[in-house]
Amino acid sequence: MAEDISNFLRQVSVPDKFEATRSELNGFVERQKQKGRLVVLVTSGGTKVPLESRTVRFLDNFSSGTRGASSAEYFLQEGYAVIFLHRSRSMRPFLRHFSSLNYLDLLEFKNSTDSRSQIQVKENFEKMVGSQLQKHQSAVSDDRLLGVEFQTLSEYLQLLHAACQAVNNMNNKAMLYLAAAVSDFYIPKEQMPEHKIQSGDGPLQLSLEMVPKMLQPLVKEWVPDAFVVSFKLETDQELLVKKAQQALAKYCHQVVVANLLETRKKEVIVVTKDTHKAIKLTDGQLDSGVEIEEHIIKELLTTHSDFIHNRPAL
Amino acid sequence: MAEDISNFLRQVSVPDKFEATRSELNGFVERQKQKGRLVVLVTSGGTKVPLESRTVRFLDNFSSGTRGASSAEYFLQEGYAVIFLHRSRSMRPFLRHFSSLNYLDLLEFKNSTDSRSQIQVKENFEKMVGSQLQKHQSAVSDDRLLGVEFQTLSEYLQLLHAACQAVNNMNNKAMLYLAAAVSDFYIPKEQMPEHKIQSGDGPLQLSLEMVPKMLQPLVKEWVPDAFVVSFKLETDQELLVKKAQQALAKYCHQVVVANLLETRKKEVIVVTKDTHKAIKLTDGQLDSGVEIEEHIIKELLTTHSDFIHNRPAL
Repeated sequence: MAEDISNFLRQVSVPDKFEATRSELNGFVERQKQKGRLVVLVTSGGTKVPLESRTVRFLDNFSSGTRGASSAEYFLQEGYAVIFLHRSRSMRPFLRHFSSLNYLDLLEFKNSTDSRSQIQVKENFEKMVGSQLQKHQSAVSDDRLLGVEFQTLSEYLQLLHAACQAVNNMNNKAMLYLAAAVSDFYIPKEQMPEHKIQSGDGPLQLSLEMVPKMLQPLVKEWVPDAFVVSFKLETDQELLVKKAQQALAKYCHQVVVANLLETRKKEVIVVTKDTHKAIKLTDGQLDSGVEIEEHIIKELLTTHSDFIHNRPAL
Repeated sequence: MAEDISNFLRQVSVPDKFEATRSELNGFVERQKQKGRLVVLVTSGGTKVPLESRTVRFLDNFSSGTRGASSAEYFLQEGYAVIFLHRSRSMRPFLRHFSSLNYLDLLEFKNSTDSRSQIQVKENFEKMVGSQLQKHQSAVSDDRLLGVEFQTLSEYLQLLHAACQAVNNMNNKAMLYLAAAVSDFYIPKEQMPEHKIQSGDGPLQLSLEMVPKMLQPLVKEWVPDAFVVSFKLETDQELLVKKAQQALAKYCHQVVVANLLETRKKEVIVVTKDTHKAIKLTDGQLDSGVEIEEHIIKELLTTHSDFIHNRPAL
């Protein structure tokens, strides 16, 4: 299994600026370690899988990255340093609160000439923008947030591997929060047409291979001492807890957060080897803007803290 | 053929707020008509095709929407009113110039307390933001830009149909600039699994049907008097002009803009029934920030103007 993923990683091309990103990751983790902080690696958004070498078409996964981006905010709030490994153009911490707006509509020219700035945030958006800007600035100035972007499945897996190599240095003080929606299938390079698939040739038959499971080598080899949280998104209630327990038995990690596509914003089940705990928001909580990620992160904080005490670093 | 697309449209579910959007489109076009303006419908970005009814996975097309968004800007500059039918979260006119930045990094809190605003654009971004903000505000205050968003193929086709019904009212003063990257393939509802495809079941076999061609009914029935520009994106130079000419012969519209994936930002061929004209940027032009869309739109402006004079409105 670990060999499968190593083979996969050897076959794919290296992301742009890979070595620079690796240095950034290592430097960031080293600084957090010196400050005695906990570090969480949050993965977020879907992965693209090309169907052609010169890619016009690709397979993608449903994910706007909202869960990852909001979780990153709550981890920051709880004192963690966050590596945010996200799909480019998916939701980002703090910025996500304006994603339904055209950002230019937040701004206006000033009438007065008494000060330097000519462009300001409109009065009616000032409170909302100010509150997020403050949190964003404080995460940046505290050196507690590092963003890393991916687009394709292969970029994701390579950057995940590099990030794991960096956080492994934190032993049990590292958490992995694997919220990205990673494709299960891909087309191997040697089976991929070079040019755009021609639509004149009739219906399209695609045959996709399974992506080697990365969770097993990740848990056993990449970050053997870390606290690992994976996600299960299903559309079928019947399969939910059963598949979460199967995953824990198979990969031997600490937590699966299980959720259904339709109810994922108001209900999840946090599954560990011995327990499962439902977290639900009431309609009242939802209406007043409470986010389920705040409760998920509080629950994981406790579980991670227990984990650190019960399994001391080597 | 026209029946195919009608059947397709009947089978799919209606986008959110479809009737409200239709009214907006009709109202927008009516106001432009009263002001004697030309109207262009610009489509932009890729279309999503679901692989499951409760969608976790989908097929997508390569497109950030840069061509559509920049073209919309140049159409506005040339005096057109623009309906911008775009994939949600793809590039938007004016805003696209900051897409590589985290928008929160453009802003800062003010130190002084002498004026109302607490949040301003940082000095080093002021010129860049100001120039785009001005153009954005002027398009909005002149009532010359209407944005409409889609995500899936079926939303795209339905909104395109509604937009065509609105602009048909402009006769030959309407241009259609079909820059969206529309999927050629889809999975019909009755062949789609309800639940998430399980990865434990081994390699994935997909069979996709061809999407009925919408260009023929669009040209012949939806907007019979309008000036229609379609795009051909290929990866193979050999096929390029030949496929453009085939499309013109088949669909009887006015222009195909043909381009290769790799060189699309510096070279296109504008193909009409009797002519084809290459538009190329030099490296010097590219380096100084000239965009090929400016030249494409200037060329189309002339061709549209000739079309209006040679084919008077009924």
